[in-house]
Amino acid sequence: MIDPYNDEYFMKQALAEAQKAFDRDEIPVGAVVVANKKIIARSHNLSEVLNDVTAHAEMQAITAAANHLGGKYLIDCTLYVTLEPCVMCAGALSWAQISKIVYGASDDKRGAGRFDTSLYHPKTEISGGIMAEECSEIMQRFFANKRK
Amino acid sequence: MIDPYNDEYFMKQALAEAQKAFDRDEIPVGAVVVANKKIIARSHNLSEVLNDVTAHAEMQAITAAANHLGGKYLIDCTLYVTLEPCVMCAGALSWAQISKIVYGASDDKRGAGRFDTSLYHPKTEISGGIMAEECSEIMQRFFANKRK
Repeated sequence: MIDPYNDEYFMKQALAEAQKAFDRDEIPVGAVVVANKKIIARSHNLSEVLNDVTAHAEMQAITAAANHLGGKYLIDCTLYVTLEPCVMCAGALSWAQISKIVYGASDDKRGAGRFDTSLYHPKTEISGGIMAEECSEIMQRFFANKRK
Repeated sequence: MIDPYNDEYFMKQALAEAQKAFDRDEIPVGAVVVANKKIIARSHNLSEVLNDVTAHAEMQAITAAANHLGGKYLIDCTLYVTLEPCVMCAGALSWAQISKIVYGASDDKRGAGRFDTSLYHPKTEISGGIMAEECSEIMQRFFANKRK
């Protein structure tokens, strides 16, 4: 039987969050945290609105998910995020000991994957490239608008 | 003339913040952000109280300083922190483009300095070992209490 709650399903939810960021003139990155096939946190980048470099989608998702769970560790949780996490977010996700990270588009310039040594927790499974085209497209559309 | 507002003066303020964390049963790390010889933000680790891995002293200091300045970049600011920043905090400080980071004790296990490639912004000046003994001592005292 086909599972409708697959990676693509949850990445679409993260993309809907990215669109909310886009609509607020924020770099369009969105995230959801999933536990037992249920979304327990949704967030999008708010760095400009909050005037705060720490307000990345992933950071807010970690805080919201921990709040929901009543514990600061996100073991048995999966983060879906439209863009590859940066150094800050990889470090935070490592502290949270999250089980799995699924990201859409790669970020060759700012992504955490560009270092020789992994910045993630050794027990965290990383999966990139889910709906990468759609996740890239919204970023390209945002920056194309900025250049106009 | 001797400048009373030297690195040691500001690190003592960061240590006072670390003591506040200690008193709340938090891993005792404290930080202050200084601009034009004035402290514009003070913070201490609140990971347990807030149930949030992102609540490191540095992260709160970045948010508070940006709030004070009305801009998210901490150019011309110095962060004084009692412990070497971790990956998450180094990443956040890089986004903030902070001019200088002065830390007390090194953190060989979790510190951002253990990677071959710097995690900091290329323009950020890093200075470690200021009042390292005092900054280490409060950590050792905290963990010794925990083992009792």
